[in-house]
Amino acid sequence: MKLTEIPDDELAEAMPVAKKIASALGAQDYNILQNNGRIAHQVVDHVHFHVIPKPDEQQGLGISWPQQKVDMDELKQLHEQLKSKM
Amino acid sequence: MKLTEIPDDELAEAMPVAKKIASALGAQDYNILQNNGRIAHQVVDHVHFHVIPKPDEQQGLGISWPQQKVDMDELKQLHEQLKSKM
Repeated sequence: MKLTEIPDDELAEAMPVAKKIASALGAQDYNILQNNGRIAHQVVDHVHFHVIPKPDEQQGLGISWPQQKVDMDELKQLHEQLKSKM
Repeated sequence: MKLTEIPDDELAEAMPVAKKIASALGAQDYNILQNNGRIAHQVVDHVHFHVIPKPDEQQGLGISWPQQKVDMDELKQLHEQLKSKM
């Protein structure tokens, strides 16, 4: 099950609940992470959100996100294409 | 600005919009990431959500999340403590 399969009215509840959890944790710095698909690190097959406190550089979530060179015209084209689908 | 500072009615809009973007992208596998605080990888100081397609193992979001040994009793205590704050 992935995010795109959940009805909007149920999805609407997710971030207010994440906010409650983050507040209860008392975390200054934290990440919200939601994974869809095995290669995207989804291990459990229901839709769920991780609220991950980041107390210091070592603990919590580390991310890597390889940068790509992007052509501005291609990016504009993608933007238009996405807008037309929404 | 962090997630915990956003009113619930505005937060409620976030995941339905992320869903629209993920659908428009046509991504099979993808991650939703929202960062709060510099050490938690927040670079731009307004609250925003990343919708990150994961087309293969190399591209998209990579994560590391160091595991810790946890005592079950301590975990139960934390659970009770969080529930009492919500």
